[in-house]
Amino acid sequence: MQATISRKAHFNAAHRLHNPEWDAETNEKVFGVCNNEFYHGHNYELIVSLTGKIDHQTGYVADTKWLADLIKEKIENRLDHKNLNLQVPEFKALNPTAENIAVVIWNLLRDEIDHQLTLKVTLYETPRNFVEYSGN
Amino acid sequence: MQATISRKAHFNAAHRLHNPEWDAETNEKVFGVCNNEFYHGHNYELIVSLTGKIDHQTGYVADTKWLADLIKEKIENRLDHKNLNLQVPEFKALNPTAENIAVVIWNLLRDEIDHQLTLKVTLYETPRNFVEYSGN
Amino acid sequence: MQATISRKAHFNAAHRLHNPEWDAETNEKVFGVCNNEFYHGHNYELIVSLTGKIDHQTGYVADTKWLADLIKEKIENRLDHKNLNLQVPEFKALNPTAENIAVVIWNLLRDEIDHQLTLKVTLYETPRNFVEYSGN
Amino acid sequence: MQATISRKAHFNAAHRLHNPEWDAETNEKVFGVCNNEFYHGHNYELIVSLTGKIDHQTGYVADTKWLADLIKEKIENRLDHKNLNLQVPEFKALNPTAENIAVVIWNLLRDEIDHQLTLKVTLYETPRNFVEYSGN
Amino acid sequence: MQATISRKAHFNAAHRLHNPEWDAETNEKVFGVCNNEFYHGHNYELIVSLTGKIDHQTGYVADTKWLADLIKEKIENRLDHKNLNLQVPEFKALNPTAENIAVVIWNLLRDEIDHQLTLKVTLYETPRNFVEYSGN
Amino acid sequence: MQATISRKAHFNAAHRLHNPEWDAETNEKVFGVCNNEFYHGHNYELIVSLTGKIDHQTGYVADTKWLADLIKEKIENRLDHKNLNLQVPEFKALNPTAENIAVVIWNLLRDEIDHQLTLKVTLYETPRNFVEYSGN
Repeated sequence: MQATISRKAHFNAAHRLHNPEWDAETNEKVFGVCNNEFYHGHNYELIVSLTGKIDHQTGYVADTKWLADLIKEKIENRLDHKNLNLQVPEFKALNPTAENIAVVIWNLLRDEIDHQLTLKVTLYETPRNFVEYSGN
Repeated sequence: MQATISRKAHFNAAHRLHNPEWDAETNEKVFGVCNNEFYHGHNYELIVSLTGKIDHQTGYVADTKWLADLIKEKIENRLDHKNLNLQVPEFKALNPTAENIAVVIWNLLRDEIDHQLTLKVTLYETPRNFVEYSGN
Repeated sequence: MQATISRKAHFNAAHRLHNPEWDAETNEKVFGVCNNEFYHGHNYELIVSLTGKIDHQTGYVADTKWLADLIKEKIENRLDHKNLNLQVPEFKALNPTAENIAVVIWNLLRDEIDHQLTLKVTLYETPRNFVEYSGN
Repeated sequence: MQATISRKAHFNAAHRLHNPEWDAETNEKVFGVCNNEFYHGHNYELIVSLTGKIDHQTGYVADTKWLADLIKEKIENRLDHKNLNLQVPEFKALNPTAENIAVVIWNLLRDEIDHQLTLKVTLYETPRNFVEYSGN
Repeated sequence: MQATISRKAHFNAAHRLHNPEWDAETNEKVFGVCNNEFYHGHNYELIVSLTGKIDHQTGYVADTKWLADLIKEKIENRLDHKNLNLQVPEFKALNPTAENIAVVIWNLLRDEIDHQLTLKVTLYETPRNFVEYSGN
Repeated sequence: MQATISRKAHFNAAHRLHNPEWDAETNEKVFGVCNNEFYHGHNYELIVSLTGKIDHQTGYVADTKWLADLIKEKIENRLDHKNLNLQVPEFKALNPTAENIAVVIWNLLRDEIDHQLTLKVTLYETPRNFVEYSGN
C-alpha cells in the first residue's frame, strides 16, 4: 500500500527578479514591480510531499516529525529571514522566481530522503500564486 | 525542468441547477434546493494551473501577472456578478453545475494559452465542494 | 468569570442591491454590478458570538451544539439556497446589503437567546468583505 | 469528459500511536509524544475525491449532497468524537497513523461508490500534516 | 500610542466533558458525544493578544519572538499531546470546556507578562467553535 | 443602527528592523534575524474596519468598492513591492515593525474617511503575527 504524506513549513524572505543579461528596460518590462532594485518580500508557504509504501511496523510512509526537522535544518535555516539574491548561494546566478526556488528546495532535499520515496515540492509565494515541482 | 504554476481568482454569481427535459418533480428530486427557481449563489474560487518547462531566461513557466490578467479578462469579466443561467451564453443550454462551469472555463482559456502548456482548472463552489478538470 | 463563545455557520444565497425609490441610473451608479437585475450570489459565512458568565456546573457560556442547532433552524433554513430579495420576507422592503443581512440575523436570534447573554453577529459576504453588528 | 469532484468533511477523535510488538522504550523512541498512553487528539479534516465522467443529464460526476451524506453515515458517525484505538474496530490491530486512517476510510467507502469512479482520500491530521491515499 | 499584538500557536490534546457531581444520564444529556468516557480530541488553535503602548525605541508593544517562546514554554509544553483530564493538574477538578481551557491559559500567562499590558486569550476548539477570555 | 464593515487587502514588501541609535550588537540582540542588513520580507494582509451608522438609503455603512479603491490608491500603491525602509518616506526615521506600519496606514487613511466613522487597522505580518491599531 502506497500513500503520500505532506508537511507544511514556511519562511520569510526578500528577493528581486532580475536577469543580468538584459538591460534595465527589458527587466522592467518582463518583471515589472518584481524587478524593484531595493527588493520586496514574501511569506513563503512550503509543502513537502513524499510518496511511498506504508511501513507495516510504524504505519508511516515517513515520520513527519523527522520530515519537519529536516525541512527546518536544510531549508528554513538557509532561507528564512534572508535576502535570497544576496545571501543564498544557489541564487547568485539563478533568478529567484517561485519556480526556481521550488527547484532549489527540491535539490536540497532530494539526497536527504530515501530514494524509494518520490519527492514533490509545492511553494506558495503568495496565497494566490503557487508552484509545484517533482524533479522532472 | 518542468513545473506547474497556479493562480487563484474568484467571482460571485447566481445560478440554478435545472434540466429542462425533466418535469418539475424530477428536477426537485435530483437537484433539491439547488433547483430553486429564483436562484441562489456562490463565491466561486478558481485556480488555473499551467504545467510546462521553466524558461531559462525568465525563470518562469509563465508570468503569473499575465495569467491573472487573462483570467480577469476572459473569465471574471464574463462571470462575475452575473446570473449564470440567464446572462452567460455558454449556460443557455448547459446546466451550470460546478463540473460544467469548470469545463466552460477550461474551454474559454485553452486557446489563449500556449499549447505547450498543460491546462488544469480547479473550481471551488463552496469551501467544502470543488471540482478539477484537465480537458479530457 | 465572563467569556465570549462563537459558532460559525454558512449559507448560500442570491441577492441584488437596489433602492426602489431611485431610478435605474442612480441604482447603477450607487450599487454598480451588485445592482444586476438578474441577481448574483455569495457563500455567506456567519459567526454568532455570545458573551456572558461561564456556568459553574457545565463550564459553558452556552452549549455550542444548541447554538449550532438554533442557527440552523432560525437562519440557515430561512436563508440558505434562497433568493434574498424574492423569498425572504424581511428583505421585501429592505436592501439586502451585508449590513442589513447582519441586522436581520441579529433580530431573528435575539429573542431566542437568554437576554443575560450579549449577542454579536459577524457576516462574511466574501472572504474580503465582512460586517459586524451588536444590536446598537 | 472526465472531472474530479471533492467533498470536505471533518471529525474529532482521540488516538495514540503504539506498536504492541515493541517494548515501551522503542515505542517512545519511534512515536515520541504521540505514544502518550493517555491519548491525545485531533480535528481531522477529510477530503473525498471521485474521478469519472460528467453525466450529460445531471452535469454531475456525482451528487455532492449524496457524497456528503455517505461520508456522514459511513465515516463521521463511526469516527467522530471517538477514541480510535479503543472504539473503532478497524484499529484494534492497526496503528491509527494518518496513513492508516486514510486507508481505513478508503476501504470503508470503496464499495459504497460506483466502481466506474476512481476514489481518493485526503486526510489532514493537523493543518500542517496530511496524507493522500488512492487504493494502490 | 496604543496597539494590540497577537500571536497564534497550537496544541493537540484529548479531553472529555464531564461533571462528577452528576450521574451518567445527566452527563450524557448535557455533554452528548463530548462525554465519551474514552475521550476524543482536538487541534486547538490559540491566539494570545497583548494591548499596550508602542515602545519608542523598539517600535514593539512586545517582542512576538519572546511571546512565542513564552507560549511554547508555559502552554504548549504543558498541554500539547496530553490528555487534559488526566495529565493537566488544572483540570483535575475543572471540566476542560473551551471556556475553562481559555481561563486556565489566561491564568498561566498573566503573571508572566508585564501588568501594563492587557491580556486576551482566544481559543479555537475546532475551526467552527471558539472562545475569548480577557480575565473578567 | 450602527455596524462595522471591514475590507481585506494585501501587499508584499521587504523590510528590516533596526534602531540607528543603537550599536550593531544591541540591534542584533533585540531584533534578531529581523535585523538582517540585507532585508527580508512578508506578504502583509491588511484589514480596514469602519464603524458607523447604516445609511437608510443605501443600506451601507460605507461602500466597500469605494473602500477597496481607497486602500489601493493610498496604501497598496505606496507599499506594495517596496522596500519599506528605503522607499517609503514614513519609515525613513521610523522602524517598520508591524505596530508602526499599522500606525502609518491608519494615519494615511484617517483624513480620507468621514470622521463620523471610527477607523481600525489590522495588519497580519505573517499568518501567526498580527497587530491592531485604532488611533489611540
